[in-house]
Parts: sequence; C-alpha cells; structure tokens
Amino acid sequence: MGRSVSDVGEPKESDIVSHTSSHRQRDNVKAVHKVGLPTRKKLGTEFKETVKETFFHDDPLRPFKGQSKGKKVLLGLRAVFPILEWGRRYNFSKFRGDLIAGLTIASLCIPQDIGYAKLANLEPQYGLYTSFVPPLIYAAMGSSSEIAIGPVAVVSLLLGTLLRDEIDPDKHPTEYRRLAFTATFFAGVVQAGLGLFRLGFVIEFLSHAAIVGFMAGAAVTIALQQLKGLLGIGKFTKKTDIIRVMQSVWGAVHHGWNWQTILIGLSCLAFLLVAKYIGKRNKRLFWVPAIAPLLTVILSTFFVYITRADKKGVAIVNHIRKGVNPSSADKIYWTGSYTQTGFKIGLVAGLVALTEAVAIGRTFAAMRDYHLDGNKEMVALGTMNIIGSLTSCYIATGSFSRSAVNFMTGCRTAVSNIIMSLVVVLTLEVITPLFKYTPNAVLAAIIINAVLGLIDFEAVVKLWKVDTFDFLACMGAFFGVIFVSVEIGLLIAVAISFAKILLQVTRPRTALLGNLPGTNIYRNVEQYPEATKVPGVMVVRVDSAIYFSNSNYVKDRILRWLIDEQEKLEENKLPKINFVIVEMSPVINIDTSGIHALEDLYKSLQKKGIQLALANPGEQVVAKLHAADFIERIGQDKIFLTVKDAVAAFGGKPVPSV
Amino acid sequence: MGRSVSDVGEPKESDIVSHTSSHRQRDNVKAVHKVGLPTRKKLGTEFKETVKETFFHDDPLRPFKGQSKGKKVLLGLRAVFPILEWGRRYNFSKFRGDLIAGLTIASLCIPQDIGYAKLANLEPQYGLYTSFVPPLIYAAMGSSSEIAIGPVAVVSLLLGTLLRDEIDPDKHPTEYRRLAFTATFFAGVVQAGLGLFRLGFVIEFLSHAAIVGFMAGAAVTIALQQLKGLLGIGKFTKKTDIIRVMQSVWGAVHHGWNWQTILIGLSCLAFLLVAKYIGKRNKRLFWVPAIAPLLTVILSTFFVYITRADKKGVAIVNHIRKGVNPSSADKIYWTGSYTQTGFKIGLVAGLVALTEAVAIGRTFAAMRDYHLDGNKEMVALGTMNIIGSLTSCYIATGSFSRSAVNFMTGCRTAVSNIIMSLVVVLTLEVITPLFKYTPNAVLAAIIINAVLGLIDFEAVVKLWKVDTFDFLACMGAFFGVIFVSVEIGLLIAVAISFAKILLQVTRPRTALLGNLPGTNIYRNVEQYPEATKVPGVMVVRVDSAIYFSNSNYVKDRILRWLIDEQEKLEENKLPKINFVIVEMSPVINIDTSGIHALEDLYKSLQKKGIQLALANPGEQVVAKLHAADFIERIGQDKIFLTVKDAVAAFGGKPVPSV
Repeated sequence: MGRSVSDVGEPKESDIVSHTSSHRQRDNVKAVHKVGLPTRKKLGTEFKETVKETFFHDDPLRPFKGQSKGKKVLLGLRAVFPILEWGRRYNFSKFRGDLIAGLTIASLCIPQDIGYAKLANLEPQYGLYTSFVPPLIYAAMGSSSEIAIGPVAVVSLLLGTLLRDEIDPDKHPTEYRRLAFTATFFAGVVQAGLGLFRLGFVIEFLSHAAIVGFMAGAAVTIALQQLKGLLGIGKFTKKTDIIRVMQSVWGAVHHGWNWQTILIGLSCLAFLLVAKYIGKRNKRLFWVPAIAPLLTVILSTFFVYITRADKKGVAIVNHIRKGVNPSSADKIYWTGSYTQTGFKIGLVAGLVALTEAVAIGRTFAAMRDYHLDGNKEMVALGTMNIIGSLTSCYIATGSFSRSAVNFMTGCRTAVSNIIMSLVVVLTLEVITPLFKYTPNAVLAAIIINAVLGLIDFEAVVKLWKVDTFDFLACMGAFFGVIFVSVEIGLLIAVAISFAKILLQVTRPRTALLGNLPGTNIYRNVEQYPEATKVPGVMVVRVDSAIYFSNSNYVKDRILRWLIDEQEKLEENKLPKINFVIVEMSPVINIDTSGIHALEDLYKSLQKKGIQLALANPGEQVVAKLHAADFIERIGQDKIFLTVKDAVAAFGGKPVPSV
Repeated sequence: MGRSVSDVGEPKESDIVSHTSSHRQRDNVKAVHKVGLPTRKKLGTEFKETVKETFFHDDPLRPFKGQSKGKKVLLGLRAVFPILEWGRRYNFSKFRGDLIAGLTIASLCIPQDIGYAKLANLEPQYGLYTSFVPPLIYAAMGSSSEIAIGPVAVVSLLLGTLLRDEIDPDKHPTEYRRLAFTATFFAGVVQAGLGLFRLGFVIEFLSHAAIVGFMAGAAVTIALQQLKGLLGIGKFTKKTDIIRVMQSVWGAVHHGWNWQTILIGLSCLAFLLVAKYIGKRNKRLFWVPAIAPLLTVILSTFFVYITRADKKGVAIVNHIRKGVNPSSADKIYWTGSYTQTGFKIGLVAGLVALTEAVAIGRTFAAMRDYHLDGNKEMVALGTMNIIGSLTSCYIATGSFSRSAVNFMTGCRTAVSNIIMSLVVVLTLEVITPLFKYTPNAVLAAIIINAVLGLIDFEAVVKLWKVDTFDFLACMGAFFGVIFVSVEIGLLIAVAISFAKILLQVTRPRTALLGNLPGTNIYRNVEQYPEATKVPGVMVVRVDSAIYFSNSNYVKDRILRWLIDEQEKLEENKLPKINFVIVEMSPVINIDTSGIHALEDLYKSLQKKGIQLALANPGEQVVAKLHAADFIERIGQDKIFLTVKDAVAAFGGKPVPSV
C-alpha cells in the first residue's frame, strides 16, 4: 500500500501492466496481471451479436440444432401449436382438473362478459362471443396452461373510451361496432407482429409500478361507472373522470335513484364480498367466491321474474341475441380513414392487452417453474385476436381474476379454456333467453367485485417502502386515470417509465471512494463511513456507462467533486490533491462522446497539475479507449487493474484507522 | 481461499457481515467489514436531491451564498449580463485583438449572409439583418468569448425546408416571411425557456455521432443546391435529396448551363480552396482563407460590372434593400393556425441551432479552460432570437467556421461580435448598392467552400475505429439527409440516439467471472483469458442497473449462463454448479421489478438446489433489497463484501494456475 512511485518505476513494457502485490502487507502472493485488451470484433460480428442478444437472447432455435429436416418441420409445428406437444401426454387425470377449472371459470366469465361488453359500449352478446373463439385459438397456440382468455375489464373500458372519442355508439351503433372489429383486427396484427419480429421487449418499457397504478385507477373508474347500474341512475355522464361521475351520482340523488335497484344491487354486492372474504379466510373454500357470481345472477333473475320488479324501474338486460358468433369479416374497415383510426386504437388497446396477458402468463409460469417465451405468446394472442375480429369478437386477453381461479381450481392445461368456451357456446345457443330478467344492478355488483381485485394495495405499500420513484410513477398513473381519463393515465404511466430510464442515463451517480481499514478494498465513503480517504489522492467512481447523454455531466461532476474536496482540505490545512483515480468498474461501456469527455477531463486536470488514472476499465471500454488513442495519451502506466494498485503507484497511503 | 463453510460458520449477528481475511494466504490483515446499509432517506430529501442533481448539478447559486442583498442583486445582474463582469476588466490590448477578429469575421459573414438567406428562401438583406441585432444581444448576455453569432448554413437550410412545406415562398412571399419571423420568435422562446427552467440537458440527447452525420449530410445537400448558382441553371428542383438534385443538374446539361457563370464560379471556388489550403499548410497565413471570400466578391463584382456579363446570362444579386432592420413585431402571427405551425418549426430549428451553438461554446471554452453554463447560454441565445424576430431577423446561432476564425485571429471577448455587427450596419447603410453586380455564382462558391468545412472526415474515421454503433448512427443521419430530406435525417439522428440508450437499458451485458491466478480478484473470463473459474461455483456479473426494462432479461440471461455452463461441465464430467454468486458492483440501482426478478431467480435456483449469493451490492441496492425483505429472504449471510468472500464462504477453491 505505502509503496512510493519510485518503487514501482515507470513500466517499460508497452503493455498495460498492473501489479497486484503489495510489499508492506507481506502478501506472499505475487502476480502480475494485465488489464485485458480484447481483440476488436469485426463490424459484422458485433452487429450479429447485438442482434442476437436483442432479439434472440432466449435462443429459441436451440432445439432445432442438429435435427433432420423432417424433425425440424415437426418441431416447428409443435412450436407454433404447443397443443401437439402437450396433447400427446394428455390423460384423464389432467382432464378432471381441467373440467372442474373450466366449468368454474365459465360460471365466472358469463356474467362478467355481459357486463364488460357494456364497458366497451357493445351489446351483451359480444362479450360472450369473445369468450368463445379466442380461448379456442389460444388453447391450440398458447404456451401458458393457467391463463384464462376472454374480455377483461380494463381493456374493455379503454377500448370503449377510445372508440367513443371517434364514433358515438348511441347514434351510430353499426359504425361503432365496425370500428371495434377493425381495432380488434389491428390489435391482433400488432400483437402477432411484435412476436413474429421478436420485438416483444417493447412491452417491458411499461414498468410494473406504472401498471399497478394504471390498473388501480382503471378499477376505481370502472367501479364508479357501475354506480349507474347499482343505484339505478337514468342520466349518467359519458366521461370517466371521478369528478364528473360523482356529480352525476349526487345530481341524481333526489329523483334518479331507484330503491328496488339499490336493494338488489347492494345485497348482491354484499353477498359477493362475503363470499370473497370466506374464500380468503379458508383456502379450501376457494370455490365459494368462484361460483358466487353465477349464483347471484340466477337468484336475482329469478327474483325479478317473480316480483316483476322491472315494472318498478329496475333495469334489466332484456335481450341477448341467441346463437353463436356471426362472421364479421365484411364489417372491418379495410380502407378509408377509419382504417387508420382503427389501427391507432388497436395499437394502444392491443399493447395494454398484451402487457396484461404476458404479465399473467409469466406470474403463473414462475409459480409452476416453466419457461414462457414471450414472443411466442404474442403470436398466439395476436392470432387469436385477428381470428376473433373476423368472428364478431372484440379484444380478448388474459384475465387476472379468472386465471387465478383457473389455477386454484386445479387446471392442468389449456383444455380448461376449451371447456369454458364450450359452456359459453351452450349458453349462447340455449340459455341466453333466460338472461332477459337479469337486473343490470347484479351485473354492476359483479363487475365492482371483480375489479376491486385489480387494486393491489400490498404492491403499492411495497413500492412506497422500496422505491420512491416507482411509487411516484404508480401514483401518477393512478391519479391520471381517475381524475382525467384512461388514455391520459396510460400516457402518464408510459412517460414516467421513460423519464426514469432517461434520468438514469442522464444523471448517473458518482461516489468518492475510501479505503476500508485493514483491507485493499475501496468503497463509497457514504455507504461505508469507516472508509478512509487517501491523502493527496481522490478516488471517484462513476456508476454508469459514459454515453453522449451524460458525458458532459460526468466530467463536470468529477471536477466539482475535486473543487469540493480541495476546499475542504484547504479549510483543514491538509495536503492538496495531486492524483485523481477514476474507478471504472461500473462503467460498462463508453462511446465517442464519453471518450471526448474523458479527454476534456484529462486536459483540465493537466492544467491544474493533477494526474489522472483509470482503475479496472472493462472489456469494451479498454478496447474503445485504445482505439481512440486515449490510453496512449494519458500513458499506459495510468491504467490499473484495481484502485489499490493505482493508489500504490501514486505512493498513496490510506490514513490508518484510529 | 480454500476455507470451508464450517470455518466461517453461519453468522449469528443479524447484521450483514463479510470477512475479508483469508487464512491460507497468510494475510496478516484481518478486518471485518459489513456491507453498508444506509439509513433510508425521506421522500422529500430524496426528491430534493434528485431535482438538484438533475437541474442544478453545476450549483449555479454558489457565488450568491452568504452575500448581502445588494451584492446579490449586483451578482444577479452580472450573471444575466456577463458584459458587466468582463467589461470592467476591458482594456486596449484586448480591444486590439477583438478589432482584428471582428473585422475578419465581418468580411467572412457578409457574403455568407447573403447566400444563407437564399437557403432560407429569404431576400439577401435578411441575412445581413440577422448579423446585426443578434450579435449585439449576445455580446451583452452571452458567456462565450469566441463564438461568432449570425445566420448559419444548416439552420438556414432546415428553416427554409420546414417553411416551404407550409407556404410557397415564390407565391406568397409576405406570408412566408411572416411565418419565418414567427418561427424565429418561438425558437427564441424555446431556447430561453429551456435555459430558464434549467432543462438544457435535453440537447444532450442528440448524440455527437448523430450530429456529425447530420452536419455532413446537410453540408453535402447545401453544396449540391449551390450547383444551381455555380452552373447557372435556370430550372432547378425545390427538393433537397441528392437524386432529384442530380436529375436537375443533368437535365439542364444541354441547354441550362451557362459557361460564363461556370467560369466565374469555378475560378472563384478554385481560388477559395487554394486559399484554404494555404491557410492549413501554414498556420501563420490563417488570414488568407479568412479574407479570400470578400476578395472574390469584390473582384468578381468588378469583373461583371466591367464586362456586363449579366447581359450574357450571368445571374447577379441585383438588389439588396438599403438601410437597417425594420421592425417586424407586427408581422409575427400571434394568433391563428400559423402560430402553431410557427411554434413547431421554431421548436425544431431552435433546438438544432441550440445544439450547434452550445457545442461551439463548449469546444472553445475547453480550449481556453473556462466553464460555460449551458443553461445561461441558452437564455442568452433565446433572448437574442426573440429580439431578432421583432427586428426582421431569422434564426441566428453560432457559426462553426466563423467562430474558428474569430478564435484564430485573436478575439478576446464578445466585443469582436459588436465590431462585426457595426461593420454589417455600415454595409447595410452604405455599401449594399455595390452588391448589385455580384454574381450569384461567387456566392455559391463561397457557400460550398464554407459548408465543406462541416464535413468532419476525421471524426467519422474515429467513429468507425472506436464505436460501431456511433458510426451507424452517423451514417444513418447522413444518408437520411442526403437521400430523403433534412427533417428525416434529423429524425433518424434523434431516433438512433434514443435507440442506443434504450438498447443499453434493455439488453445490458452480463459476464462470467474467473479468479486471476494468485490474487483475490475476479474478472471477466473473456477479457482475462487467464482467469480461472471456481469449480462448483458460477460467478456472474450484471453490468447495469436492474430496472423494469431489463429485469426479465437479466434473470433469463443468468439462468441461460447456468444452463450453458452445466452443459459444458457435464460434457467434461466436472462437478456441477451448486452456488451462483452475482457480482453486483456495476448494479448501480434496482427497482421493484428488478427485485421481483431477483426473487424469481432465487426461486428458480432453489428448485434446482442451487444457492444464491450477492457480492458488493451498492448503497441504494442494499437499501432497497432490505426494504423489500429480499435480504431476509435469501439470508443475510448470503450478502458479501467481495466475490472472494462469497467464494470462500461457499468453500470454493479456484483451480491453481498451471
């Protein structure tokens, strides 16, 4: 440690040499290692490697390696249709699990579908249609065994809001529906396209924190919207922000509320909440909340039919078109200005749907410890929405609540989705007339009960405890949704996510390092208060790649550390700083602007008579510094393997701990 | 190193403890250090610190600290008008330098101004106007002593292109001019606004590499445009892409070229290039290229006047309005749709102008070793453009070529700009009629000569040598400009710059570490081929903050390393991996998604019977892992100060070097 510069001498070799031994410590190990200088990769090789890591980091073609042609085709087919893979191992024990799970999620989805279709300003049957075709396609192409496919609350609301901005569903229901199918078609195209071109990582840019906030905001918004049905209010705002919704509610307090509706609605809601509570308290009774919705529908429908409460102002579903999905291929706007509008809406809603589905898929895959290929999932989800848009479905995706029930009731494969789909078909063909007397209030209660599950209090508390910035992102998205609109909330969520990334690369942290007494280790003096600075030497660590976006800041910041330190030393009449060592371990990469900044730093320090050294530059950094002749410029003897070596070479000696 | 787990024992303390001593090495130093766990900062404090580092990292209020109120006002005035500061120390010797520099750049700028105004589709006098008012304002408010203010080629071209997309300058010259002033006004507002709100860092997002490509592309485009004047072509395309320009040139080859014009143009260009060559060869003759343009103007004007070549088809300037800038405050579109258009154009052109000016200011500040406050500069540049827009000027900024001449001819302060400005006024008031017979061909030659200097071959070669990605960004911007348009080139430049940042945060590098034989140091096995892996232990380093955008990738990548390593070990019949150590030194931060990914990683490893340990997590990372209870989960004894400690605790023993 306390070796003087003359001890070391100026290295004569043209190589970058670092001595890791230290005499004073009587270290018996003596070894000389050079800072590794990798051979420069060719442009082509480098480009290929970048492309591979960016798009194919999960090595999807691994199983295809060294297989015969026929086998490759078979493997390819199985990759596109995983059902061919798991179908071969399917047996009765699995079917039993899938049957129970499928029946349960069917009983959950039927009332939800009818309610969610309303969120999208569509007639009830479109919700049921969307629970028929897409789950079948997914069962053939998807890789997740637990996800339950169908319409979901948040996407329905988002789609409804975006579509209403373009066409009034009350005045032009046909055009509105056509635009909905167009948007669904493009949502599928976008989803499948992202997967095919292995661009799935774009959805990673919506941070978890922002999603938590967005989901909670959407849940509150949806729940508030349901007050219309729950309280039997006639005139209700079309807007979704909390202020106007509450005005609608209070405005209707004297003449708009219908006590029969309220009675039905609130008692159903109470029943559902109690059922949920029972299920939570006793895990073995998980089936209670799962069948409660269908039970309330049956009971309340029967009640209304008996009492003819609909004559006393209780709004009822009235009519659901009977029969399975009609074709809608001719309804999609293939040309014209609505094509573009449809694409935009499909893009936004499709991405949100994708984010939700992939998040669900990953969660359950992690629980059961299998790997889910995000890009392959996207192709499956996209295809299912493309085919859905041709068969009168709107955007389907994975539902959080139904997937959880699917998992808990013991589903084993995607067959549970097929079962659910078949039950829905049966409903469409046979039972729909029975829904005539179902009061809207019970649907409202079911939706409120379902979306409350989207508010993840625990996650918010964790965000608050763990990461301030994430918490702010979450709150931004939440308040954006409830006070302005779903789109604005989504925009805020995306903007905050990006701002965080940009902030990281624009204003990276820097830290002064000190020696941990009795060791060769140098650590941040703020994190390790016992670390002691080396007199005459300033060791500073840069915590980021040095890129164009932060190169000037990094340079300025190091110079400011120097000024601050010099001032402190002057006050205490201590020897001034003659050496600056930049610890480069966290500097994972550098670009030409970064090298330029280092050159400026070197010049500034030179004018002040201070020497500059770099410790432990990484592979790419050394290669680039070398290519830019910067190493030759500051001297190859100024590049060290560790901070310790650099300090030793400068003759620095940490103040012994007292 | 070869210490077994039982040696260490399970730490009983609830603190995170790491042992840095190692018996076998007979290290005499024994010290126990804990991984520092910082006290968590309050939301307010953390927010304040982030704001400070983001917006006020250069501590602009430092000189105001502890001053009296009167002194503070004075300091504030001096901060806004630096002329009050340096003006007090002004003396004759400085004036001599400024006078010579000012006269030289005036002689350069007058012919350039007339030509550049044409690039912006404005009459020649507007170029001269722009060299009068803005330099005066800048002299009072700017901090750079070397920058030469006025119209510049690239911004003129960009402004001209953007404005022409809205209004045809030939058909509606008045409206076109009004929109130009409106755009200039908003460019100034944007510039000053960014500076006032200390958002100057936004211009850092345009990478140096992209600017080099954009500038070179713009230079080629501008030079090609000048073929119209140089070859005396009558009908010429309004587009700027190389293909249509060359079509115009070849299309006119039989009937459109005028040999008299070509003779004048090419001989002037040859003269200018020779002068430039002389100046480069002999640094003491730097004034030769500086006065050459004015000389060619005078000689060629005289020649045309004598020979009346204009009657033989040589296009001449003909008329420049005499007198100083008229007011244009009433010409700006304060309301209406053109206000918004003007804002958009001003935003784009203003940002490009700002980037250029700040880059120039920084370059020369670094040469003379003084600090330039980017935000203050922006306020000065913005104010100068706002006032310029009210006095018939279009967007002014710093000119690369003229600033270099200003510096070389020995300017000392911004007084050289004042001198230049006064010479321009004199020109406007007295000399403009003399420009009547100046041939357009000589202006074209002067512009070509000037913009060739914007092509920085050396920088491009350096980019190619040093950084592949930067080189691609540069080429993307270059080809975007020359084959499509200036806007598209600019868009490509910005997009590539952002893509680079996003790629960095989405696909960070990871590396396997090995022990450098005979030391305690662990380094990347690819960079240091001599590094040996520890049997049974996989040490992997993650080279980035773990954020939502890369958390899934990082987890997957570590698991893939594991699979790859296991396969290799199995092939060679070596002991399999039981311990995974993640070196966290470069992991400068983590967010909730990142912690989630670590939890998933931990679960996956647990299922495989593999233990997980973290080495040297940083300050923020430890705090967050602690807050999220992750440390409690994997065990506090699994957090180590160094990789060496972790390896020792797992009983690992690096294979001795052969």
